[in-house]
Amino acid sequence: MRLVIIGYGNVGRELGALLAEKTAVLRAQYHLTPRIVGVMTGRHGGWIAETPEGIAAQVVAAAGWPATDAVPVGALPFPGSALDLINAVDADVLIELTTTNPATGEPALSHVRAAFARGMHVVTANKGPIAVAYRALREEAAQRGVQLRFESTVMDGTPVINLSEFTLPATEILAVRAIINATSNFILSGLMLGQSFDETLARAQQIGIAEADPSLDLDGWDAAVKLTIVANVLLGADIRPSDVIRESSADRMRDLAANAPPGSVAKQVATLTRTPDGIQARVALELLAADDSLAGIGQGKAAIQLLTDTMGDLTVIEGPGTPRQTAFGVLADLITINKHA
Amino acid sequence: MRLVIIGYGNVGRELGALLAEKTAVLRAQYHLTPRIVGVMTGRHGGWIAETPEGIAAQVVAAAGWPATDAVPVGALPFPGSALDLINAVDADVLIELTTTNPATGEPALSHVRAAFARGMHVVTANKGPIAVAYRALREEAAQRGVQLRFESTVMDGTPVINLSEFTLPATEILAVRAIINATSNFILSGLMLGQSFDETLARAQQIGIAEADPSLDLDGWDAAVKLTIVANVLLGADIRPSDVIRESSADRMRDLAANAPPGSVAKQVATLTRTPDGIQARVALELLAADDSLAGIGQGKAAIQLLTDTMGDLTVIEGPGTPRQTAFGVLADLITINKHA
Repeated sequence: MRLVIIGYGNVGRELGALLAEKTAVLRAQYHLTPRIVGVMTGRHGGWIAETPEGIAAQVVAAAGWPATDAVPVGALPFPGSALDLINAVDADVLIELTTTNPATGEPALSHVRAAFARGMHVVTANKGPIAVAYRALREEAAQRGVQLRFESTVMDGTPVINLSEFTLPATEILAVRAIINATSNFILSGLMLGQSFDETLARAQQIGIAEADPSLDLDGWDAAVKLTIVANVLLGADIRPSDVIRESSADRMRDLAANAPPGSVAKQVATLTRTPDGIQARVALELLAADDSLAGIGQGKAAIQLLTDTMGDLTVIEGPGTPRQTAFGVLADLITINKHA
Repeated sequence: MRLVIIGYGNVGRELGALLAEKTAVLRAQYHLTPRIVGVMTGRHGGWIAETPEGIAAQVVAAAGWPATDAVPVGALPFPGSALDLINAVDADVLIELTTTNPATGEPALSHVRAAFARGMHVVTANKGPIAVAYRALREEAAQRGVQLRFESTVMDGTPVINLSEFTLPATEILAVRAIINATSNFILSGLMLGQSFDETLARAQQIGIAEADPSLDLDGWDAAVKLTIVANVLLGADIRPSDVIRESSADRMRDLAANAPPGSVAKQVATLTRTPDGIQARVALELLAADDSLAGIGQGKAAIQLLTDTMGDLTVIEGPGTPRQTAFGVLADLITINKHA
């Protein structure tokens, strides 16, 4: 299975590490021998494999291109854009790891379509294309006879899409509640522990959870993008991130945490409910009771609760997330593609 | 797919209801048309279908054999034992729903082997055979070219076995923590709310969670049986329920709850850890911090936390459980068998 990776950072490096670490089990158990035939980095240009063996996964794991200008072993520089690379290499799967643009889905959306046009399957950890164009892409993939997978767009590689598809057959998901934005959860958890807003935000920025401008997280936009994916994929909705009702902000967080009664916990909760007018999607600040399955979701964790017609309610909690978990979601998708290809 | 159901109670009835409710989706999406060709009840004898169409799922859902002596529509009485029935009917799958005997696995173990001998696949919600003979049964099934599935033996139909098999490919499970005994969790939760032991136990018995003699639950035996299955299936161990270290009792529960520091929660926790001497399995009473993913597992809920080498830690929580959830696990297994048969 020949892979072209577009967008290379921590997740790309961890994917290299996982592929290297799991080489034997992938071959023996899943009849999968991945070969990295091309990589497009953000600031260090593109690279293609020197031989059909591909660029060794160990090299991709260790290269740290953003940190060095050394040419990776077994790779040749590729003088062109990401689209040029997708059009130039013979690959079976495009792995889309560029940064999410939740408004347009670009440039990832164009990468996905270029890959489809060349008959490639696609795995994307980039939320953009799925949030803005899931239905269209699903149809385009079906028409081309290729697969589109995106487990890592929601809660890193935590089985959410795959949980529903592979372990909840013949099941309808009636409603969803989720804590899926790391920054707002980190800050609310800090506020509930009596820390100041500024202090907690500074710490979140220092450890790399929060952006310099955290407003997309605090105002609920990031959660809205993920919730849109869950709504459209798991509940059959057809909404955009802008359709999500957002009732979250830094000021409201301060107020809610300051006035939370003892035993309650303030959280930014993303919810999907079925109404007579269709599926309502909402990201809002809520006070949860201590025995709520979502109440214990502390700093670094994320969770999704599915209300189903067969299994009652099921909650999946992800422990502290790292790029390795996102890379695992990509690996799981590659294994699925290989199984069904 | 012709089904013979051995053991008929709430789960059997709910399975009938699910099969009736999901007839269309099973046919359209999973190419599965189940036909119930035989049912062995505990106190109302055996029944076989009058026609090749089988006994209608609606009839099985509604019959309530334990409550009535009426002959179910479309069924003829079968004058023999469960083993006789398995040997008499032509079925594709045995569904084992009798009561668990954790010491011997019987009579379910004999039912499973009789089914294998006739070339039938087996779905068991009965924990006994899997807890006492998983490795042997797995080999026997492989030799006969049939499938053995048992999602409902741990946490009702919550995806635990299927989560690992279908959504965590190329993943090693390093350790497990779980709250998997309903009675002890109900009582500990009540004690933490300041209720008396006797009062809480009486209520658990009244609503059907606790047995008249709750010692198998309070002393950790029930959790040990489930933990054995998880150890042997998910971690590749080869232990028996009697190998599980048990440090749980009614007296210890009273002590622990009475002396729990504020903010901590007393729980009966089942754990698996890898040690130089192999996998250690233990059911013990523990105090958890409030932000532990298992701390919010209140009355009626159950949870399992998997520590993995790919996804860090993942926790799955089951909301209040009913026989419908157990029946769903059986249905999910039937769909898997049909897919791979």
